[in-house]
Amino acid sequence: MNRISLGLDFGTESVRALLVDLRGRERGVAVAKYRHGQITRTLPGTDESLPPDFALQHPQDWLDAAASATRTALRRAEVSATDVLGIGVDFTSCTMLPALADGTPLCLTEKWRGEKFAWPKLWKHHGAKTQTERLNALARERSEPWLARYGGIVGLEWFFPKLLETLERAPRVFDATEVWLEAGDWFVWQLTGGLTRSTCQAGYKGLWSREDGFPSPDFLRALHPKLEHVVAKKMPGAFLAPGQAAGELTAAMAKKLGLRAGTPVSAAIIDAHAGVPGAGAAEPDTLVMVMGTSSCHMLNSAVNKPVPGVAGIVRDGILPGYYGYETGQAAVGDAFEWTRHLLGARSFTDLSDHAAVLAPGAEGVRCVDWFNGCRTPLMDGTRTGAFTGLTLNHGPVHVFRSVLEASACGLRWIVDTLREGGVPVRRFVATGGLPHHSPLFLQMCADVLGERIAVPPSQQGPALGAAILGALAARAFPDATTAIRAMAVRVKPRIVKPRPAASRAYERVYADYRKLTDTLRHD
Amino acid sequence: MNRISLGLDFGTESVRALLVDLRGRERGVAVAKYRHGQITRTLPGTDESLPPDFALQHPQDWLDAAASATRTALRRAEVSATDVLGIGVDFTSCTMLPALADGTPLCLTEKWRGEKFAWPKLWKHHGAKTQTERLNALARERSEPWLARYGGIVGLEWFFPKLLETLERAPRVFDATEVWLEAGDWFVWQLTGGLTRSTCQAGYKGLWSREDGFPSPDFLRALHPKLEHVVAKKMPGAFLAPGQAAGELTAAMAKKLGLRAGTPVSAAIIDAHAGVPGAGAAEPDTLVMVMGTSSCHMLNSAVNKPVPGVAGIVRDGILPGYYGYETGQAAVGDAFEWTRHLLGARSFTDLSDHAAVLAPGAEGVRCVDWFNGCRTPLMDGTRTGAFTGLTLNHGPVHVFRSVLEASACGLRWIVDTLREGGVPVRRFVATGGLPHHSPLFLQMCADVLGERIAVPPSQQGPALGAAILGALAARAFPDATTAIRAMAVRVKPRIVKPRPAASRAYERVYADYRKLTDTLRHD
Repeated sequence: MNRISLGLDFGTESVRALLVDLRGRERGVAVAKYRHGQITRTLPGTDESLPPDFALQHPQDWLDAAASATRTALRRAEVSATDVLGIGVDFTSCTMLPALADGTPLCLTEKWRGEKFAWPKLWKHHGAKTQTERLNALARERSEPWLARYGGIVGLEWFFPKLLETLERAPRVFDATEVWLEAGDWFVWQLTGGLTRSTCQAGYKGLWSREDGFPSPDFLRALHPKLEHVVAKKMPGAFLAPGQAAGELTAAMAKKLGLRAGTPVSAAIIDAHAGVPGAGAAEPDTLVMVMGTSSCHMLNSAVNKPVPGVAGIVRDGILPGYYGYETGQAAVGDAFEWTRHLLGARSFTDLSDHAAVLAPGAEGVRCVDWFNGCRTPLMDGTRTGAFTGLTLNHGPVHVFRSVLEASACGLRWIVDTLREGGVPVRRFVATGGLPHHSPLFLQMCADVLGERIAVPPSQQGPALGAAILGALAARAFPDATTAIRAMAVRVKPRIVKPRPAASRAYERVYADYRKLTDTLRHD
Repeated sequence: MNRISLGLDFGTESVRALLVDLRGRERGVAVAKYRHGQITRTLPGTDESLPPDFALQHPQDWLDAAASATRTALRRAEVSATDVLGIGVDFTSCTMLPALADGTPLCLTEKWRGEKFAWPKLWKHHGAKTQTERLNALARERSEPWLARYGGIVGLEWFFPKLLETLERAPRVFDATEVWLEAGDWFVWQLTGGLTRSTCQAGYKGLWSREDGFPSPDFLRALHPKLEHVVAKKMPGAFLAPGQAAGELTAAMAKKLGLRAGTPVSAAIIDAHAGVPGAGAAEPDTLVMVMGTSSCHMLNSAVNKPVPGVAGIVRDGILPGYYGYETGQAAVGDAFEWTRHLLGARSFTDLSDHAAVLAPGAEGVRCVDWFNGCRTPLMDGTRTGAFTGLTLNHGPVHVFRSVLEASACGLRWIVDTLREGGVPVRRFVATGGLPHHSPLFLQMCADVLGERIAVPPSQQGPALGAAILGALAARAFPDATTAIRAMAVRVKPRIVKPRPAASRAYERVYADYRKLTDTLRHD
């Protein structure tokens, strides 16, 4: 008999099913797209146009795509249902939905299917702007104790802003909802038949902590009278850390997925955060940089220090036993792609090749990379990008290089923020698609940081992380560190080393970047 | 017999010869390129590479091209040499050269042809950076009385910096030089056989004024001991305003150009400044905006007010009897073309058409147009351009529009600077190539200024201005105003009117522009 773990990695457009053995060897993988993808234009089954800041998803897509991907992966791996000893689930967040007490999503009921606020809101849904502002103002005014854990500001994409948006815009939907929950928790509920909540999603997106729980009824009442008892009445479920077993696979879901009933299922984890175990970051003080369209930089640490500008500090948030720190850059690969388009260039490779020839500093062109706002450390989605130092002697290649350099400087700013806040950062691991697509950018990051960066060869980071959590839920390992060492640190990572001369040259570029961000933020 | 005036308009690459009658009707025009164009790579007749900031010209080119253009224009106009009653000359400035006492350019002598500092320096020659800095520092330290006339700063491209550069870099050339002079004055000398100097070139580029002459021997000695007597010993010639007769055409030059010996020749004028009479600006307080790759905005005024940031205030500098004010923007058409190239767009028209659809403000993108430094009011060639407010939702069209808007805001800043300095600005005339090529930009200027702008139909502005000066030198009119009314205000100009709603919207854009320029200049 094989001993295989299944990682289910729910992204924005598709789900990935990865089967690996307990030594981390990939046995089979498959990706299945969601039938409705991101729902941004028309509500399914209606002609109703959605507002421009709406982004919804269809719960049935998650189930159908997971079944399809799992069955294909099993076939490719040539393993049977009995070989699979555990299941881990990572999911985009905060993707959240209203449901009935039995787990039925409101949008799948006859009564509510035509109401857009009854549908799951995808993480990138931006309908709650005014609600976010009010929530932040109230929290500051009341000096809510949880505010410091989030760098002093709550994000537009988080759980309570989305909930409050529905309450205010569609109060009947709020009244009809019996359970509000994260999509990752909802999916685990479907798998196991029992409702639990992930400390990761609740901690990073739901203002929850193990010590203090959710925001107090007093605060919630001040926010909206009908919110006073929302936690007690509409947010049930025990809290479990990722890697803890949430339950066992039901017979119905086993049949749908082609797996064995009774297979242990881990509590869910946020997709980016699954990259931490997936990248082999078994040691604390390792910054795991998940670099893609945006970037999420995460760290497990033994110390608990509220750092201004750091979005989330959650005990057991990523791995049991550590404080998980989450930081991020709102546009990275997105910004590179936008710049390529802006400059009318056909090929990213071509621009990169020419940009690589320039010396650090792009011959004086400077950029601030806030093209989608500034996540860490300003936590302000309204910030905008800039270029300075431009002359008639500069061309597209200078502008492109300046964007890459700004993104590397933005990363260093985050590292400096953590260190200055008393959180040690000793090792760097880069994962996600970007480190593989842009060696130039990765080398810049190493040079600007003046640090070595490890790049694991696997491109399955989050899915592998989910599979590791599945193995932990099945008690295949005594603890997370052992599991990660066994399953994720199998193949030696590539090491990108800083080049001392370039590092020295970037000191000036970084100083300019910090000065310019300072000028723009106070303008 | 016809009564025709000849305007010779010496640009950077070519000379234009325009024949017009005394009612301003164009009779013939021809353009001839300089054989060597701009000399920026190799010194003619040698293999010597020139430094990157060098830009020289060949004096023989001016003579040969003028002869060719004049003969072609005469043939096209079907008029004879006896029909031409006067000649006017406008020339780029400060384009200057060292010569012998008989007018022979040093670079055309056997001894000096191989020495790059013996050649005429074109206006855009930028070799005198350190000399300019020292000259400015010394003038400020000594509170030189002439400094206020130039907005407190002397430009890199002006006469004394270029002279000092040669003295310091090639002292033997300085010693061998018997006459230092502007190319426009040199050409008039060739035509008439007598050396005179234009109050326009001397006033705007040579730190000269009718009241105080050139800088004092005391100042010049402090700048360099060998400069003490340079004015008395090496800068002879009486000063004449444009339109005053410098002399009559010599037999030799008459033969070369195909004209009549004895034809009156006007004192020279700077090419941009010739656009003022050429545009029909007969009244004072009219801002004549010569819009091209860069822009020069000029004004005749009865008042004499030193305005900080205004590069030159010269009595009789443009037309006799008025104080001429000169202001400018260092990159306008150049900046638009650079942006088009940066954005990889094939067609200016296509970008403009899409940009025209956007509302004032380019959906939040802001630009500072210092891509070739800031001429008025900062007088600082080292300033650089910037973009702010950029998000992933913006594209090339937003960036392009922001550059046009910034250029219009830069123009308004100049107008505000003049008015706040006590110089009335009551009428606006746009000339040069750009108003004809970009109606979108011209409309923006009208909207941002909140003023009507007149656009004369002729595209021969400076050449027509030179021809008007030729007619004045021939005493065909009693004064400049009469001459301009007769020859340049013949055809009704097109009037571009401000649109009130757009003007209101641009108030915010202009406020942002001023705030951003303020932030960047103090950064």
